Amino acid sequence: MSHPHHPALHLDGDTLLRQIQALGDIGRDENLGGRTRIAYTDAEKAGRDQLVRWMQQLDLSVQVDQIGNIFGTLPAANGSTDVRPLMLGSHIDTVQNAGALDGCYGVLAGLAVQRAYRQAGQLPARPITVAAFSNEEGVRFQPDMMGSLVHAGGLALQEALDSRDSDGIRLGDELQRIGYAGTLAAGSIVPHEYLELHIEQGPVLEAEGIAIGAVANLQGISWQQLTIRGKANHAGTTPLQLRHDAGWAAASIVTFVREWARQSGSTLATVGSLRFEPNLINVIPRQAVLTVDLRDPDESRLQQAEQALREFIAELEVNEQVSIHCEQLARFEPVHFTEPLVAEIERAARQRGLSCRRMTSGAGHDAQMIARITPAAMIFVPSRGGISHNPREHTDDAQLLQGAQLLLDVVARRLLA
Amino acid sequence: MSHPHHPALHLDGDTLLRQIQALGDIGRDENLGGRTRIAYTDAEKAGRDQLVRWMQQLDLSVQVDQIGNIFGTLPAANGSTDVRPLMLGSHIDTVQNAGALDGCYGVLAGLAVQRAYRQAGQLPARPITVAAFSNEEGVRFQPDMMGSLVHAGGLALQEALDSRDSDGIRLGDELQRIGYAGTLAAGSIVPHEYLELHIEQGPVLEAEGIAIGAVANLQGISWQQLTIRGKANHAGTTPLQLRHDAGWAAASIVTFVREWARQSGSTLATVGSLRFEPNLINVIPRQAVLTVDLRDPDESRLQQAEQALREFIAELEVNEQVSIHCEQLARFEPVHFTEPLVAEIERAARQRGLSCRRMTSGAGHDAQMIARITPAAMIFVPSRGGISHNPREHTDDAQLLQGAQLLLDVVARRLLA
Repeated sequence: MSHPHHPALHLDGDTLLRQIQALGDIGRDENLGGRTRIAYTDAEKAGRDQLVRWMQQLDLSVQVDQIGNIFGTLPAANGSTDVRPLMLGSHIDTVQNAGALDGCYGVLAGLAVQRAYRQAGQLPARPITVAAFSNEEGVRFQPDMMGSLVHAGGLALQEALDSRDSDGIRLGDELQRIGYAGTLAAGSIVPHEYLELHIEQGPVLEAEGIAIGAVANLQGISWQQLTIRGKANHAGTTPLQLRHDAGWAAASIVTFVREWARQSGSTLATVGSLRFEPNLINVIPRQAVLTVDLRDPDESRLQQAEQALREFIAELEVNEQVSIHCEQLARFEPVHFTEPLVAEIERAARQRGLSCRRMTSGAGHDAQMIARITPAAMIFVPSRGGISHNPREHTDDAQLLQGAQLLLDVVARRLLA
Repeated sequence: MSHPHHPALHLDGDTLLRQIQALGDIGRDENLGGRTRIAYTDAEKAGRDQLVRWMQQLDLSVQVDQIGNIFGTLPAANGSTDVRPLMLGSHIDTVQNAGALDGCYGVLAGLAVQRAYRQAGQLPARPITVAAFSNEEGVRFQPDMMGSLVHAGGLALQEALDSRDSDGIRLGDELQRIGYAGTLAAGSIVPHEYLELHIEQGPVLEAEGIAIGAVANLQGISWQQLTIRGKANHAGTTPLQLRHDAGWAAASIVTFVREWARQSGSTLATVGSLRFEPNLINVIPRQAVLTVDLRDPDESRLQQAEQALREFIAELEVNEQVSIHCEQLARFEPVHFTEPLVAEIERAARQRGLSCRRMTSGAGHDAQMIARITPAAMIFVPSRGGISHNPREHTDDAQLLQGAQLLLDVVARRLLA
């Protein structure tokens, strides 16, 4: 496919798909069906090495910073090095037994954009940097999105390096061990603009039959763990009015947050984890531990949901005579991406004749961190069945190529300006 | 205390309390705080041996039947052996780490009634048989209340003997091993009437400050296990209308049965056990497995509750697009005890100046099986905090003695007739 603004820029779809597959073969487990490249493991080092080789093949300037973020930069046509680059990025670390697309797709599509310039024998109006951010998944070392968070100045480098896994191993030592403790000062490269192409990891685009999501914002997230303490008692002999049923209290929280979400229309609420004790058929639960995941693209609505939950819990404590302890596990404010970039994505999709909708990202992404320091936006392509973090994660090749073409189109448009 | 109808009959409270303690010391675990005499184990054999020695000390005729039920009979004054006995009974097997009262109290109070006759040098108008029924708890071999069920003809002897524990060991072999495979044909002794004294194992008497429960009936029980299959999905990206949330479906069943119970006023409903899969904070549960324990003293109301649950489940399957599989784990119809016996208990309590209320037994007892073949009733004394099946099971000595005195009073009244 030729480019409307740069007739010489062609997406090399074959190479992109081949690289996605090759990277997905690293850390592969044939029995489980997926691949595992948890940040700072040997398998992830192998993935990094492969990425760096591909960057070198494109004759990019490759830099690694102190938290292990990898940057591959295609220089600008005028050779100037003090111009801020357009940055395309995502991550190549994975969860346990992952699909091949989450993160990797965005990084490798960035390389495909650079490759289009190389193959056309042209250089862009400003440098194009592809970033693979360190430890996006946060499986072994928390928090997640760590590399981009450090890059954006939201977490001190030393604190990140000093974080330890459940075996007490220090992140900085592991980074050193795999040879990716770079010398570039963290946060050095402040991009002019940032674009991240990603699979949706949700079912909306597929359900609506739409090819492209122009991601306008990213939900705020509130994670709480609630521990309810009631009183164990005999299920057959304890009248309703003498019960202190931690299990029922938990269930009523589940149905309350669901109903709140239904009425709000914008808040998402999920109770994914719930445990009863002693968990016996004929014993009223003494204790229930549950998590509540609340998300909303609007901070005030997210706070309303949190407040409503607090009030419901306070009532429950009185009415059921149970005690409820709340622990905040995570809290992120919503992120609003940059309007001109979102509109650019929509325009580019229209020009290609691709169906497109504005949407909210439900999952967290590196783009939300980079949005703290520069204009940013994201492009989504459909995920079959909305499935991700799973070997069954899938997007059709044609859809992957549409997304990468759109990324190339948007880059070309932005570099016209 | 002397007896209003038989001035010579005195309850020997000290011996009763001493025997409760001595039996409770068998199978004791000082670390856990309770005792464990699971049916047909060495510890339970030791409990049986102790009981038989006490029966022999009272010069009772001791018989063991083919399922291991132990009967100790005080003969009638006229020496006749073909008169049906008044039977007092319960059980001496326990759950894991039990209290000292559940079952044992009723058996040993039966001995105390017989002892009152012996100490007065009198014999009753008809034989008094104390029964210790085999395997009431059903911990190792199911079903529970097995000895009384076989006695009442509700379970074939051979089937009971052939039941196996989780290690494949046969009940009949264990019974032989501990020396309690008796020769008396199961079900031989059909009592004239049956009385069982028991701790309430629930909080009602304590909460209302009442000394004696005249148990008029015993709830029907319906146990179901429900397996809900939905679809795991990302908590942040899956809109409400695209969810198939097994966890929410489970929670809505919990709140539904509770609300049904509240409105019915007679049905008890408990969800004691609930498990989510994969049970992760940010994943919509793919599966939820829960148990529903429904109880009602009225069979038609119990059936209404089961029917309402079925209808609610059918709606849930449609509205949430989940599949729900129901497995019936247990089902017992309600039992109505014999009105003249219940009234006799109330009269006797009145005469002693003891507060008394008619009540429903929420738990299962041997009396419900024996009620199939003869007039039967139960007497309850308070359980502190409603706690049972636990080392913290407790009833004050004074309350234990009030209950035993009442049993003696009721026996004396019944034997006047």
